[in-house]
Amino acid sequence: MLIVADENIPLLDAFFAGFGEIRRYPGRAIDAACVRDADVLLVRSVTRVDRQLLQGSQVRFVGTCTIGTDHLDLDYFNQAGIQWSSAPGCNARGVVDYVLGSLLTLAELDGVALSQRVYGVVGAGEVGGRLVRVLRGLGWKVLVCDPLRAAGEGGDYVSLDTVLEQSDVVSLHTPLQRGGEHPTWHLLDEQRLARLRPGAWLINASRGPVVDNAALRALLLERDDVHAVLDVWEGEPQVDLQLADLCTLATPHIAGYSLDGRQRGTAQIYQALCRVLGEAERVHLADLLPAQALAQIELHADADPAWALATLCRAVYDPRRDDADFRRSLSNDPAQQRAAFDQLRKHYPVRREIEGLAVRLRGESPQLAQLLSALGAVQG
Amino acid sequence: MLIVADENIPLLDAFFAGFGEIRRYPGRAIDAACVRDADVLLVRSVTRVDRQLLQGSQVRFVGTCTIGTDHLDLDYFNQAGIQWSSAPGCNARGVVDYVLGSLLTLAELDGVALSQRVYGVVGAGEVGGRLVRVLRGLGWKVLVCDPLRAAGEGGDYVSLDTVLEQSDVVSLHTPLQRGGEHPTWHLLDEQRLARLRPGAWLINASRGPVVDNAALRALLLERDDVHAVLDVWEGEPQVDLQLADLCTLATPHIAGYSLDGRQRGTAQIYQALCRVLGEAERVHLADLLPAQALAQIELHADADPAWALATLCRAVYDPRRDDADFRRSLSNDPAQQRAAFDQLRKHYPVRREIEGLAVRLRGESPQLAQLLSALGAVQG
Ligand SMILES: NC(=O)c1ccc[n+]([C@@H]2O[C@H](COP(=O)([O-])OP(=O)(O)OC[C@H]3O[C@@H](n4cnc5c(N)ncnc54)[C@H](O)[C@@H]3O)[C@@H](O)[C@H]2O)c1
Ligand SMILES: NC(=O)c1ccc[n+]([C@@H]2O[C@H](COP(=O)([O-])OP(=O)(O)OC[C@H]3O[C@@H](n4cnc5c(N)ncnc54)[C@H](O)[C@@H]3O)[C@@H](O)[C@H]2O)c1
Repeated sequence: MLIVADENIPLLDAFFAGFGEIRRYPGRAIDAACVRDADVLLVRSVTRVDRQLLQGSQVRFVGTCTIGTDHLDLDYFNQAGIQWSSAPGCNARGVVDYVLGSLLTLAELDGVALSQRVYGVVGAGEVGGRLVRVLRGLGWKVLVCDPLRAAGEGGDYVSLDTVLEQSDVVSLHTPLQRGGEHPTWHLLDEQRLARLRPGAWLINASRGPVVDNAALRALLLERDDVHAVLDVWEGEPQVDLQLADLCTLATPHIAGYSLDGRQRGTAQIYQALCRVLGEAERVHLADLLPAQALAQIELHADADPAWALATLCRAVYDPRRDDADFRRSLSNDPAQQRAAFDQLRKHYPVRREIEGLAVRLRGESPQLAQLLSALGAVQG
Repeated sequence: MLIVADENIPLLDAFFAGFGEIRRYPGRAIDAACVRDADVLLVRSVTRVDRQLLQGSQVRFVGTCTIGTDHLDLDYFNQAGIQWSSAPGCNARGVVDYVLGSLLTLAELDGVALSQRVYGVVGAGEVGGRLVRVLRGLGWKVLVCDPLRAAGEGGDYVSLDTVLEQSDVVSLHTPLQRGGEHPTWHLLDEQRLARLRPGAWLINASRGPVVDNAALRALLLERDDVHAVLDVWEGEPQVDLQLADLCTLATPHIAGYSLDGRQRGTAQIYQALCRVLGEAERVHLADLLPAQALAQIELHADADPAWALATLCRAVYDPRRDDADFRRSLSNDPAQQRAAFDQLRKHYPVRREIEGLAVRLRGESPQLAQLLSALGAVQG
């Protein structure tokens, strides 16, 4: 079997060498000639995969190690009988960690207890769903808005209006939809932004245009009490410098950039290929991930839970580092600013996930045990 | 034996109950009547101890759980044959931790490696001396200015001019001296501040007036490249609000406020009393300090040392919390601002020291072992 792959996909050999030969190319250089003899094509978002690329090839499986599929012509795949897989949710946990780190920063700045706030999560898919489970696991009050899921599965969902009315924290986790029944383009527009509660925090790590950036800038200029955390920007990599300046945390679309997430992307298309081929999975991500530098943390059972939460989360990831790197990179020269945005994403430092952190309790504490289980820490 | 003590001294019973009866009073309420029958008087800085207080009493030992002795009339003690002790250096390690935490914040903001900077430490007593040992232990380049020690013991000291010329970081640890051969009042005045290197960081956790605050404000208004960290202020508890705003970190004279430091203050006068009485020490601070909430951290031996340093230090103490609390407390109403300054000091949260943190290495790493020993972490 011949596998043609984007050279930037991590762990190619570890996961795919067992299937046959792997030929690597830069993602943007993958053309019809490269894929002609391939059985399997593995890409990232930079390779457009459509009839033009695949016609005449013997590709039977296309895997993209990304959550998005905009670069895949799925209609053509269906017509041509080509199997495919993406990696939904592979980087969702990274975004949850980003939100947790942001909450800790905001709580420190405002001097409030996170356990006393009401959380509004908008969009309860891979990211939002995980976030809701973590926040509820911590025992916090969470309102969830997801009209599609409400319509589909039913359950404990509220309207966006209710979220805005009742939440101290609004965290956005929808896709970007310009049309349809539930468009999300400028979901938070001037009117809705104006309804944020006093002292509210707004976090957007979904897609830039889900928030009207100009309206948000105007709001932040007017309201000192509101904090905004933006990981995604309308028109990124171009960023509104004044808006960035007004944000409490500003980062270049890296919320989901954990090492675990990147490698999980490969693992998920490996698993999909195994299913397609009817083969058993012989390679496991857990065996391939490098050891955590933070091998274990041991907490005394009488530790204060709020302190424990902050210490554990920040020991793994604190978004203030990425905020600092991003602010230093901001430039009045638009070309330079855009290039810096991309560079920061390209040369992102190794970051691990809170899920899987090894924690021991010295003594018994049901409260801390609940906290560890909410975070997904591994109790050893 | 009768012991009269300020009721706010921690661990009074644990250390002194074995000597006899302890009578407690608010520090400001201790008068001649209270101390008349006392053999031992234990105070903090709020009690003035002089002939007026002690004459006619049978006090033979005065202990102050503070590093300063301004509130003690030592001449009178000598005349009257009264033994005394203060607690020099009891809170020095807390200040070192504060400086380490500040350095980590500044390094993150400027995106520089701490190991590549040149450190200038001015004043190498209890605090400065410990700081120099930690920084040199980490393998960093440190210049030390202490003309009194240079004259007394000789050694590897440089002038203040050399510190200003060659250091990327200037950290002040002198007493406040208005006169004498080496005055420190406005030691960093307008001229000297102007000589700070490009991108320099200035840290003052000694005494406010060692830096000309108005000149520093003017400098920071002019030079974007300089970061200032102030824990102490000219005229505190009154603070120059504009200066505070221009500081990268601003805190209300809490650099040394660790729980360990407070309790060590009591331990040191206990030890002094034992010496005076010719008794063996039977009580030990290590047995009395509460268990650390952070019971242990285990690091993988291939962890990046810069990451390890940041993770260990911040897990114990990160001054950004105190900076946030202080900034929230700043008020345009001077009386309110001063009251808030004192309140923050009075109700300071429990903070532990990095020295004594239990750390395990998973695997062998001479580099990390050196780092742990420089920090004073206990390798288990
Ligand atoms: N910043 C990052 O690094 C990063 C990383 C991963 C994902 N993302 C982004 O986060 C968002 C969520 O990703 P995901 O993987 O969870 O996607 P998902 O498709 O799994 O979940 C999206 C959810 O949003 C819901 N939704 C759709 N329209 C809505 C509306 N109008 N109101 C409320 N809910 C609505 C959907 O029903 C779905 O449950 C996406 O925009 C994705 O691109 C960003
Ligand atoms: N911010 C806090 O919470 C906090 C805590 C502890 C100490 N302090 C302050 O820190 C300073 C140092 O405290 P310490 O306990 O180390 O005092 P110390 O007396 O042990 O050391 C001071 C050192 O400064 C040197 N010195 C004096 N004049 C000097 C000059 N002109 N130039 C250079 N060096 C000079 C002395 O020789 C001495 O070695 C003091 O001002 C103290 O009040 C602040």
